[in-house]
Formats: sequence, C-alpha cells, structure tokens
Amino acid sequence: MTDDLTRDLLLGGRVVIWQPRKGFRAGVDAVLLAAAVPARPGQSVLELGCGVGTASLCLAVRVPDLAVSGVEIQPAYADLARRNAIETGVDLTVATANIAALPPDLRNRSFDHVLANPPYYQRSQGPASKDAGRDIALAGDTPLAAWVETATRRLKSGGCLTMIQQADRLPDLLAALDGRLGAVEVLPLAPREGRPAHLVLLRAIKGRRTRFSLRAPLVLHAGPRHLSDAEDYRPEVAEVFRNVAALPGFSCDSSA
Amino acid sequence: MTDDLTRDLLLGGRVVIWQPRKGFRAGVDAVLLAAAVPARPGQSVLELGCGVGTASLCLAVRVPDLAVSGVEIQPAYADLARRNAIETGVDLTVATANIAALPPDLRNRSFDHVLANPPYYQRSQGPASKDAGRDIALAGDTPLAAWVETATRRLKSGGCLTMIQQADRLPDLLAALDGRLGAVEVLPLAPREGRPAHLVLLRAIKGRRTRFSLRAPLVLHAGPRHLSDAEDYRPEVAEVFRNVAALPGFSCDSSA
Repeated sequence: MTDDLTRDLLLGGRVVIWQPRKGFRAGVDAVLLAAAVPARPGQSVLELGCGVGTASLCLAVRVPDLAVSGVEIQPAYADLARRNAIETGVDLTVATANIAALPPDLRNRSFDHVLANPPYYQRSQGPASKDAGRDIALAGDTPLAAWVETATRRLKSGGCLTMIQQADRLPDLLAALDGRLGAVEVLPLAPREGRPAHLVLLRAIKGRRTRFSLRAPLVLHAGPRHLSDAEDYRPEVAEVFRNVAALPGFSCDSSA
Repeated sequence: MTDDLTRDLLLGGRVVIWQPRKGFRAGVDAVLLAAAVPARPGQSVLELGCGVGTASLCLAVRVPDLAVSGVEIQPAYADLARRNAIETGVDLTVATANIAALPPDLRNRSFDHVLANPPYYQRSQGPASKDAGRDIALAGDTPLAAWVETATRRLKSGGCLTMIQQADRLPDLLAALDGRLGAVEVLPLAPREGRPAHLVLLRAIKGRRTRFSLRAPLVLHAGPRHLSDAEDYRPEVAEVFRNVAALPGFSCDSSA
C-alpha cells in the first residue's frame, strides 16, 4: 500500500494527509466531524476508527493542547496516521486495535470527547470492494451499536460523543443510543438548499437527560445545483475548510 | 363537556369543528397531518385517535370520494367527530374504541392510508392534567409502538402511514417502526428559519424497501421571530390553511 500514496493538504495546508491513492480516501466527512467536536484546550479526546488520522488531526490543529488518541484496526492506516501527525506537527497517539477490544491503556481511561465516523454500509448490504482496506473503512464488520457502546463506555460523565453518518442510517444510529446518553442533537447536512440531508452529525452527552433535538440543517453548497467544478461552499462552510473554523449550526455546548 | 363547546372553522371555513373549550384543542398539527397524506380520490383511509375529527375532515375536504374511518377512545370526542362530519358535509365513520383493540369491522379491513397524531407525552413524564379528556389526548396510556403496530397491521401492502409527532420524540417514533415499513421519510417542521424542528411528519410505505430519507425542513412562519399576533405563515403554508393545499416538502408519492 505504501507504494502508491498521495500527499494531500487540508485546512489551508495546516494538515498533511498521506493516504493510499486507491484505498479509502479521507474526505469532507472527517473534516466536518472534527469541526463539530466542541473540545476546549487541555481536554482529552479519543477517535474510534481514525483511519489515516484526518479528523483527529483537523481537531488538534483547531484546538490547542488536546491529548488525542486514535484507534484504527488496519495497521497500514494506523501507520499513516502516525506519520501524518508528525508531518502535521501535532500529538496523536494511535493504537492498532479493534474498537470492540481496546488495549488496556485505553480501556482504563475515560475521555472528555469521543468522535467517530463509522463505516457507512453494513457489509451484508453492499458489494465487497476489490480493495480490502477500503472495504473495511467503508463497510466494516463492526455493527454501529458496537461503535456507540465503546464510545459511551470511554466517555467521562458529562463527556461528549460526536459522530457523523450517512443520513439514511439515522434510524440505526439513534437506535444504538441508550439511556446513558442524553441531550442528543442531530445536525442534518444537506448538499444544497431544499435537498434531503445526505449526512447527519450527532452529538450526545453522557449522563445528561435533556431531550432529543433536531436542528436546522447546515447546507454545504451555495446555489441550487452543481454548476462547475469550482468550489462553491457556502461562506460559513468554507471557513471550516479554509480557516479551521468550528462548525456552525450546533448551538449547544458541552459542559465537558 | 357538551355544555361548554366552541365552534371553530378551519381551512377557510370549509371544516366545522365543535370542540370542548377547555379540553384538548384541535390545532395546527392536525391540519398539517391531513395536508401530508398523499391520498387520491376513491382510496380508503383510517385515522387512529381521531379526536373531534380534525385531521380526517381536513383530508376529506381536500381529497374527494375518500372512504374515511376514525377511531377514538373517548366517547365525547367521538360524538363530536360525528357531529363535525355532518356539519362539514363529508362522510366519516367513527368507532369508539381503543386503538389496541379495534372492533371487528375495522380489524377485518385494510386501508390505503393510515394517519395518526399520537399523544405527545408519555404519561410517566408529565404532570396529569385536571381535564381527563385533555390528559388522554395529550399524554395517553398507549405507547407509541402500539400506535405504529396497529397502523402497520391495518395498512394494505403498498399502503402509506402518515404520522405527526413532537420532534423530540423522533427517536421513539423511528424505534417503533419495524421491517414491514420502508421508504421512511421524515419532514421536519420548524417554526422559523434556522430554528430546530418542533414537529416531525413521518411517512412510510408498507412492504417497500427504500431507505430512510431526512428531508429539508418545512419552515412554517416567515421572519426571524414572532413580532405580532398577526398570522405570518409562509405562503406555501398559508395555502394549506386557507386554500386546502397539500403540504409541500414531501416530494415522493405513495403508489398506494
């Protein structure tokens, strides 16, 4: 895999991402996930399924003095995440492990924030990819409920879970939450004004009882349809990608 | 209860609603629910928990030649629904029954459409009202899952379920659906642009496998905030209330 890598720059060049040319490609989703985590300097963060580190590195670049740990099941991706952290110039500790069986040093810790961008398909529902790494990143064997279970266990009381998923899996994602999480907020992400959501960001607080809230969608692109290959992000979204802004749309802050 | 009734006119005067002055009051929700049902002339419709008949009558006024049946547990509300149907001049057959134990003539039928506006609170979560009728209509003893179960059973294959609920109960509502329903669409209803949804409309088709869709919200009111008591519905919503329009926002039609 290391024979055919690309070097991509994110967040105006602040984040360096080496990644397989043909494997699972770091995308807009990881950047948006990182922008949605309400972390404050000095807090601890765990990313489940960190891949080549995109979301963790984007978060570490935006919020200083975080202690960020990532878990990635695929050794080649985990290695790239470590390399990307060094080239980006931030601290990221990456464990190569299955999220359902974390190593003891992570199992014995709890975190202010857990973030995750779980695979978007259940293996039974789609054709297997020819690229095994891409297949695990996109489809995965671990059910969504196991991601939420591990995340919930690793959160401090008052800690905040942030996840991104395809919008059509929102029912599965909500079903995976249990009574330990509250103050659940869903921020739909829509490609254009008036269009259905294609992604959803979800935030929940461990130990909070506040009821579910469905927020107004964040529309990513300006204009009614895609007219050219020129970037047409709406200004508040462009700020996320260019100037490392936090994501607008989530009004409520975690007290973590 | 019949000693203290009001006579309200809905949909530009086309629908007559006699209802208790102090009980559960027919509201915007029932009108929006009716406007969201994609019924066509000649089809059969069942409303679970029809109250004084508001949603069923609004639907019958918009779509001609429907065979509409309602079920209402409270005899006084059921009587008012029958009276309102006569004064509105449409056919509505109302059974006084618990939705978990429908009478045989309804249990032996299946419908093109089922609609419901289930109680918005679980009894355990709120204080009991001094008005028992209002209490049953608002809180109810029947869990949301029982409403969805009865609705699903009574739908034809290819038939369409339409429900309205408070947005903070969306997780409960989605959890109540099972594999018999598909093509689930959620239309968030927001009071103002940029505000969280306060209500959700849900549609699902029995026997369909299409995946979940979270549509762009329908914003009810114009302007950033409530400035006066003057009606400030957005034009497409005002059309629903004044001119009996179908609700915009749900793009996909039932094939029922």
